[in-house]
Formats: sequence, C-alpha cells, structure tokens
Amino acid sequence: MRMRRKKFLYDRLDQCGRWFAHLEIEDKNFNNAIGKSGKLDFEGIFNNNNPVHLELGCGKGKFACEIALKNPDINFIAIEKNRNVVVEGCEKAKELNIPNLVFMDCGAEYLEYFIPKKSIERIYLNFSCPYPKNSYASHRLTHSGFLEIYSRILEDGGEIFQKTDNMHFFEFSIEQYSLCGYLLKNVSLNLHQSDFEGNIITEYEQKFMDMGLPIYRLEAVLRNPEKENILIE
Amino acid sequence: MRMRRKKFLYDRLDQCGRWFAHLEIEDKNFNNAIGKSGKLDFEGIFNNNNPVHLELGCGKGKFACEIALKNPDINFIAIEKNRNVVVEGCEKAKELNIPNLVFMDCGAEYLEYFIPKKSIERIYLNFSCPYPKNSYASHRLTHSGFLEIYSRILEDGGEIFQKTDNMHFFEFSIEQYSLCGYLLKNVSLNLHQSDFEGNIITEYEQKFMDMGLPIYRLEAVLRNPEKENILIE
Repeated sequence: MRMRRKKFLYDRLDQCGRWFAHLEIEDKNFNNAIGKSGKLDFEGIFNNNNPVHLELGCGKGKFACEIALKNPDINFIAIEKNRNVVVEGCEKAKELNIPNLVFMDCGAEYLEYFIPKKSIERIYLNFSCPYPKNSYASHRLTHSGFLEIYSRILEDGGEIFQKTDNMHFFEFSIEQYSLCGYLLKNVSLNLHQSDFEGNIITEYEQKFMDMGLPIYRLEAVLRNPEKENILIE
Repeated sequence: MRMRRKKFLYDRLDQCGRWFAHLEIEDKNFNNAIGKSGKLDFEGIFNNNNPVHLELGCGKGKFACEIALKNPDINFIAIEKNRNVVVEGCEKAKELNIPNLVFMDCGAEYLEYFIPKKSIERIYLNFSCPYPKNSYASHRLTHSGFLEIYSRILEDGGEIFQKTDNMHFFEFSIEQYSLCGYLLKNVSLNLHQSDFEGNIITEYEQKFMDMGLPIYRLEAVLRNPEKENILIE
C-alpha cells in the first residue's frame, strides 16, 4: 500500500514538470536547473534575471502561489521537505501556469548545495515549526546554525521576513538574529492589530487568527559588515 | 502656595543628606559627589569600588531600595527627573539607612555630565514612559539617541535590563537596540508566565499585573566591537 502511494506521488510530481525541481536526480523536465557549479541557475530556470525570493517551509504553497501572482517581477523558490505536501503546491502552480515560481524539496541544512552564494534577496519563514523542546532548538529554522547558512546565500542587505504564532519561538528568533548580527526592523507583536499593509495570510495564519491568537512578525536584515555604520563608539 | 510647596520640597531633600545628590549646586552633605572631572566619584560616595548599577526613571524608589538591600555588594544610582517623586525614594533609603544607594534628579540626556565613561555595569529601565505618539519617539528612553549615551557610560559587556507593559514601546526598543548593535538576550514577551527568576516587582508592574496585562522584558548587552566574534561570514 505504502509503495503504491509513493509511486503515485512520484507520478504526480513528474506531471508537475518545470514547477518541481528534482534535486537529487537529473530531470529532463528541468534541464536548466543545475548550473555548471551544481547549483540552481536562476536565469536558466526563469529566463530572466529578476530578484529571487525564497520561502522555506512552504507547505501546500498557498502563500507562494499568491505572492508570485502578485509580484510577476520577482522569482520565487518555494521549499518544503515533505513531498506529500509540496506536490499540492506544484499542482496548483502548474494549474495557474505561474511562470515565476518553482518548488523544491530540500532541507534547510542543504540550501547551500543548490542555492548560489549571495543570490537571494529575501527569505520568507512563515509559521515554521517552533520545536518547543529546548533540546530541539537547533532544528528551529532561526537557530544561528541556519542563520549562518542564510547569511551566505542572501545578498548583502538581503532580508528575512518571519511570521509565527509561537511566542517562545519568536523570543528565541529575536535573540538568534541579534546574535548573528542581523538588523531587526518592523517588529510586530500583534500583526493583525498593527498598521502593516499587504499581508498575505497563510493556511496556518488563518487558523491561528480564528483562534484569536496574536501573530508575531519581524524583518531581519543582513548587515554588510564592511559598509556598516556602527552608531556606538 | 506653589512656592511654599517648593520650599517644603527642598527642605525635605536637604534632610535626605547623602541619599540625594544635588547635581546643580555644591552641597556640603555631598562633598565627595563631584570628582575632579566634574563627574560623580563613585569610590568617594560609596567608600568602595564595587560595580555600579543605575536605574533610570526610578519613580518613588521601591525597586531601587529593594534591589540595593538584596545586593549589598553592588552600588546603585537611582535617577528620576521629578523631584516631587524622587524625594520619597530618598526618604525611604535614609529611613532604611541603605549604604549602597544614592538618588539623583537628572534627565537621561545629561547623564554624561555626571557619570564617568565606561563606569556602569548595568542600567535598569523599568516601565519608562512609552511616549505613544510617533512624533515623540525621540523622548523614549530606548531611542538610539539615548542608547548612544548609554553605550558611552556602560562598561564593555555592560547591559540594559528593560521591562515594560507597552507592546509598541517594546517593539520600538528591540529595533533601536538592534540598530545600535546591542546583543539581545533573555527576551520575554510574557514575563510572569516565563521561567525567569528573581524578578523584583515595581509599583507599575503590580498595577499592570492586576489588570492581567503581559509584561515584556529583555536584556541588551553592549558589544565590544574589537572583541566581537561575528558569526556570519
């Protein structure tokens, strides 16, 4: 039974063509995906050199599809480890024929294998798993170990846009960004009572809003140490 | 009527002797207060060279008296602009004969006139006025203008301990600390539901707790740019 489901899943992913980047195997539908360096060749994939934004943990891709449709001049890479979930995003994107969006299944720890250095303008972390137990802190997508990876794939001045419903995860994230030298901007401890405009509501977000819980949001900007103007003496 | 009240207030402050530092005038009760540089001579005041902690906006001094009594090996300077309020703290400290505590009336903008450079180990900001209007942002005690002053009187590795009930003021403060390069630690978005120990409850804090409101708290550490270990490449 499990085998049949898996085969069915691969068939579905294969049907998604260019909207799903098979990273482990050479894929005739995705010939341009792997550049000479073994990393994604964004210009080859999207046929332009627009800025690239990346969503980590995109789930079923509701946010990714919506933001890609709203921003045709930005290219989006939506990443989700769970193939049973990401396939739904791929199918949606194919159905809507969204040219500036590609899905990948990849753990955040492997990002550097596929994403060129200093190539990403923005990373979205929407309702990432908070891993509440402290012994799992290193699995949180804002742990300094991951932030160091992001700092290498982000352009100078590149930014991370994070939303979560989990208070302790947000506290932890603030500390980790600070530790890694990111500049914190537009911190909101109750997004839906703030004056922030243009928010795209994710599946999770709607659920938490319906429960009356506050949504936490921030922007963390990668400082350029060389150009840095340290205010303190 | 106003004059009589004022005279009465000065009489009361005079009675407080060494517990109130008259900064504008030469005060025979406080001969050792102004060092050769015109700044406070902590060793002369406290007869020891213990670390010095400073509370900005100490109100009636409940927190300052309590923390000074609990920490006899730390010297405390409690600062409050409003003399009608600070006098109560002075009287309390005199009554309890607390040797390691002195009160001052001084605006935060004048701190550097009286506090030597790199002489303070910790600054407490307890329920500072949030100045909710954005046009008054520069009056907030965590505005970068003030943080730059603190960074000059704080020792390297010195820290600011902040508590507030005001969400937007806390959001603003996080951004300002980040802008000025402070390292954020022990961020708590609901202090009384966290595992933080040893909290001293201020007058304001009790009031907000009684109203069921969350208390926000953080520690901001002054980084030493020379010794800094930047984690990101």
